[in-house]
Amino acid sequence: MMFLLILFTSASLFSSSSNALDFCVGDLSAPQGPAGYSCKEGEAVTVKDFVFSGFRVAGNTSNVMKAAVTPAFSTQFPGVNGLDVSLARLDLAVGGRTAMHTHPEATEVLIIIQGTLCAGFISSTNKVYLTSLHEGDVMAFPQGLTHFQINVGKTPALAFASFSSTSPGIYFMDYAWFANDLPTQILQETTFLDSDQIKKLKELLGGIN
Amino acid sequence: MMFLLILFTSASLFSSSSNALDFCVGDLSAPQGPAGYSCKEGEAVTVKDFVFSGFRVAGNTSNVMKAAVTPAFSTQFPGVNGLDVSLARLDLAVGGRTAMHTHPEATEVLIIIQGTLCAGFISSTNKVYLTSLHEGDVMAFPQGLTHFQINVGKTPALAFASFSSTSPGIYFMDYAWFANDLPTQILQETTFLDSDQIKKLKELLGGIN
Amino acid sequence: MMFLLILFTSASLFSSSSNALDFCVGDLSAPQGPAGYSCKEGEAVTVKDFVFSGFRVAGNTSNVMKAAVTPAFSTQFPGVNGLDVSLARLDLAVGGRTAMHTHPEATEVLIIIQGTLCAGFISSTNKVYLTSLHEGDVMAFPQGLTHFQINVGKTPALAFASFSSTSPGIYFMDYAWFANDLPTQILQETTFLDSDQIKKLKELLGGIN
Amino acid sequence: MMFLLILFTSASLFSSSSNALDFCVGDLSAPQGPAGYSCKEGEAVTVKDFVFSGFRVAGNTSNVMKAAVTPAFSTQFPGVNGLDVSLARLDLAVGGRTAMHTHPEATEVLIIIQGTLCAGFISSTNKVYLTSLHEGDVMAFPQGLTHFQINVGKTPALAFASFSSTSPGIYFMDYAWFANDLPTQILQETTFLDSDQIKKLKELLGGIN
Amino acid sequence: MMFLLILFTSASLFSSSSNALDFCVGDLSAPQGPAGYSCKEGEAVTVKDFVFSGFRVAGNTSNVMKAAVTPAFSTQFPGVNGLDVSLARLDLAVGGRTAMHTHPEATEVLIIIQGTLCAGFISSTNKVYLTSLHEGDVMAFPQGLTHFQINVGKTPALAFASFSSTSPGIYFMDYAWFANDLPTQILQETTFLDSDQIKKLKELLGGIN
Amino acid sequence: MMFLLILFTSASLFSSSSNALDFCVGDLSAPQGPAGYSCKEGEAVTVKDFVFSGFRVAGNTSNVMKAAVTPAFSTQFPGVNGLDVSLARLDLAVGGRTAMHTHPEATEVLIIIQGTLCAGFISSTNKVYLTSLHEGDVMAFPQGLTHFQINVGKTPALAFASFSSTSPGIYFMDYAWFANDLPTQILQETTFLDSDQIKKLKELLGGIN
Repeated sequence: MMFLLILFTSASLFSSSSNALDFCVGDLSAPQGPAGYSCKEGEAVTVKDFVFSGFRVAGNTSNVMKAAVTPAFSTQFPGVNGLDVSLARLDLAVGGRTAMHTHPEATEVLIIIQGTLCAGFISSTNKVYLTSLHEGDVMAFPQGLTHFQINVGKTPALAFASFSSTSPGIYFMDYAWFANDLPTQILQETTFLDSDQIKKLKELLGGIN
Repeated sequence: MMFLLILFTSASLFSSSSNALDFCVGDLSAPQGPAGYSCKEGEAVTVKDFVFSGFRVAGNTSNVMKAAVTPAFSTQFPGVNGLDVSLARLDLAVGGRTAMHTHPEATEVLIIIQGTLCAGFISSTNKVYLTSLHEGDVMAFPQGLTHFQINVGKTPALAFASFSSTSPGIYFMDYAWFANDLPTQILQETTFLDSDQIKKLKELLGGIN
Repeated sequence: MMFLLILFTSASLFSSSSNALDFCVGDLSAPQGPAGYSCKEGEAVTVKDFVFSGFRVAGNTSNVMKAAVTPAFSTQFPGVNGLDVSLARLDLAVGGRTAMHTHPEATEVLIIIQGTLCAGFISSTNKVYLTSLHEGDVMAFPQGLTHFQINVGKTPALAFASFSSTSPGIYFMDYAWFANDLPTQILQETTFLDSDQIKKLKELLGGIN
Repeated sequence: MMFLLILFTSASLFSSSSNALDFCVGDLSAPQGPAGYSCKEGEAVTVKDFVFSGFRVAGNTSNVMKAAVTPAFSTQFPGVNGLDVSLARLDLAVGGRTAMHTHPEATEVLIIIQGTLCAGFISSTNKVYLTSLHEGDVMAFPQGLTHFQINVGKTPALAFASFSSTSPGIYFMDYAWFANDLPTQILQETTFLDSDQIKKLKELLGGIN
Repeated sequence: MMFLLILFTSASLFSSSSNALDFCVGDLSAPQGPAGYSCKEGEAVTVKDFVFSGFRVAGNTSNVMKAAVTPAFSTQFPGVNGLDVSLARLDLAVGGRTAMHTHPEATEVLIIIQGTLCAGFISSTNKVYLTSLHEGDVMAFPQGLTHFQINVGKTPALAFASFSSTSPGIYFMDYAWFANDLPTQILQETTFLDSDQIKKLKELLGGIN
Repeated sequence: MMFLLILFTSASLFSSSSNALDFCVGDLSAPQGPAGYSCKEGEAVTVKDFVFSGFRVAGNTSNVMKAAVTPAFSTQFPGVNGLDVSLARLDLAVGGRTAMHTHPEATEVLIIIQGTLCAGFISSTNKVYLTSLHEGDVMAFPQGLTHFQINVGKTPALAFASFSSTSPGIYFMDYAWFANDLPTQILQETTFLDSDQIKKLKELLGGIN
């Protein structure tokens, strides 16, 4: 067996210094760059880095939207850092829905585990792609397009979303527009909304100005 | 000089068969794939393929928004096909503005040639990045984030946008939501807008249902 | 409203000619390139292209492995063509398992919907990352690394895999080695397996030579 | 409103820890990697990071080339770090020109704001693509190909270049060959230039050896 | 000549601060990210960073496989960091061979410098691509597919492999399966191998359990 | 064995329809796109597609440069289409050299098989990276930077170049400038060369105007 080891002398040299040739588990405390987090040292990486248990429990849907989104992006699940895929769990109580939103950096593919949804997205030619989704169905929502899901069934709904990025972003339009200090006058000039409506939503969502 | 030619025998072999090693001018009549249009045959490519003259004339701003966007994406300017960059011309009459919009596939960098703009974008943490832009200023609008520009000066404004894609998309939120057959009830459930407001905008923008 | 239309004259021009700026639904009958299938014409695209229903029914696990893998790659689900994400459904009867395999082109992230699995992968430094997975758990299997899943619970198991490619490949090592005409002598020289073992597996898996 | 906040508990968790899901403003003092600079901490990012004002003033063209190039790459304009697009301002006095150069890492798209240019590039099959450009015209210069622009009009010329990279490089051939210590003998052997010419240009451009 | 310098004032500004626009020599002591090592400071970079001399001497083939692989990946040859290409030297004594292996992150292209090889790879449809290679021949082994090379000639063989990544990985199946603590029972359940065979190979390759 | 087959029913479905999940051998007669040639039908692909024999014979160095470059890019070697790596063989007679050139689309890594070379490249900060290379040495030439190799030894030299693209381009500066119809006056204005020198080289290399 001594001879065998010789074969791998040079190969072992580089392999032992870093696991990063196979993966790059995110070190959340180290510098982050355009391609993701810095890699955790190979020796410190364990199987726990590749397992995420945050989906075991349903999200809390006791809110206005009757909805909860639980992300497993690279920040919550550093094992996918640099690997171009991530997930989220979606819980919708009866009548629950995700408000109109986009993912600025990723395409979403949604698997319906339980329940019946009405879901849709709108293309940049303003065409609506609308459908009903049942248990076991999958729907793709192309990158950057506004979409939504509504639980139209009589039971809570559960679905999992896959993303083509480890940092897809979740971008709710109503919050982007109304839940901050963007002046009402600017909103009036850049949307077709009435000022009364804008003011009402700013108040509702915690915005000012 | 005969000898010289021999040097390039093999190199010439591949070069003459296709210019595509240097570029891939889009053939709009051939199949299109995820990476862009098929390439025009090398012999048919001329310098005209690399020149776009559609920006010579100002866009017509005689509309409700007092604005005009003239794209030079790969469909209008096939010379950039596959080269990961494209442009658009933006004309804003006094008081003109681009309605809230995103580019689902690209970052925008805008150069102000003439006029004074108020411009901004909103991050997915709902933070507003708002500023005034003057002649010669440049502003970056990261991929997929809602943004707008308003001519707040006393003269027409002119600006050019550069994109990190040859197919960035222009995605106006109001049009995506209201200028189609997306049912009012769904809009009610997935936004915080009042039904009266939704109906009013559907009528204004040509939507139904 | 006439004025409004003028604003979008140029934008409409390019938008109407193709939906490909937003997505590129695969046309399975047209040429395929390194980046995926050619795009279906925009007018022919409907919401059905973005929905996949092949996961509604459990795969048939009445086989030696007591396992079934149902892919939703770009070939089965052309709506994800060019969008860099795809899925597969995994059914494991009690005691079922996926044989050692890799995905040559993609990282896998697996969500456990039902059951208890023993799962693991092996890095190129020959380190084993082995764990138990319960309902709601997620595990990442980095690109190209050998991995497996075994249903170690007392009920059938169900899981969904997400991939960072629309064409991840499913590459079972035993089949790659034994289910074809690769000569036994070559297998002997390039593995540490005994010739009796090789011959037995060739016979079992339908290989010759 | 308390309920509403619950919906975003998990989403807020990841969003607040970093803005990097939307952008990665370059921190010029932190490590730089192949994909660009490390990201500035989200809290420290302001709208100023996304605005570049270095183009307000014309470059100084009082030089032999009667030309000035002002870059807005990620080093000057850290807001575009990681976003795959950058800019430069080009000023050409009457008779001014950019010497033959390439961008090793990017395609250039040039917009003529003022003046009349003669511009061209040469493909790797040695074919010349030469044209005149007027105010409003755009020309693409594919990645890595030698090109130039000459102000052939009677007024100063102004143009803006967009690049498909935040670090395109500006690579002047004459400077690369003559403005350093590359031995004259090597230049003689690897070009068809006469030694007298080489020595003259080395002296002119500050080269030695 | 004073005027000339003015032309490059702004260009010099960014160029002098970093060579990273041209390359990113890996700093093995700084953080590593998904795209590779951090860049060595430009001033510290010399031509030595771009030269690798580890291939001058043949690898030691006095081992069971009569083979030696000497990598020039970014860890051994930091000059290629971020440049998407790397190399390895392959020495095979008479009768030597590389055991069945994959490169999880890269395609390999192999050039035969000396000797006669039998080489092959197996696709994910289990099809074998098998051939003889002679001096001067080149063979491509697509990313992630199992392959091998056997010296079937009467002299030592020498070949060089090029990879489409600076961190391709070298992944020997037998070692991945048997040279570690992966339990024999799991191997039995996830392969078609007999337990005797598994135990024999574990012992041979230093595995336990 | 019947049961076994059932396991792979769905997997076989997609695998049999196309080999493109593993590779995309270029079909030179079908449309070419920005990502490369269309894929040859899977059934028509054989091991011959992955083997290139054009390097068996030395290139003819009986020319002014005493040099020959034999490319194995995707046009000559369709098996590497879409796989991001290609090769070239370089023969240099005693005193032979490659004229100053770049590869617009790729980094080059050169392995010296025989002979002693003087080689160098020049960065965009005009810094020269110059060295001697001996048998077994490797040198990296980063993308787009001008470089050259001179056989300074007493025997013919042989080297192989690897590229990070299947279409790297070979771009000889002297030919780009002088071997075509680019007017002498433009060359005078955009280089520092004397008109006599330009005319002499145009005549030498077959250029006009």
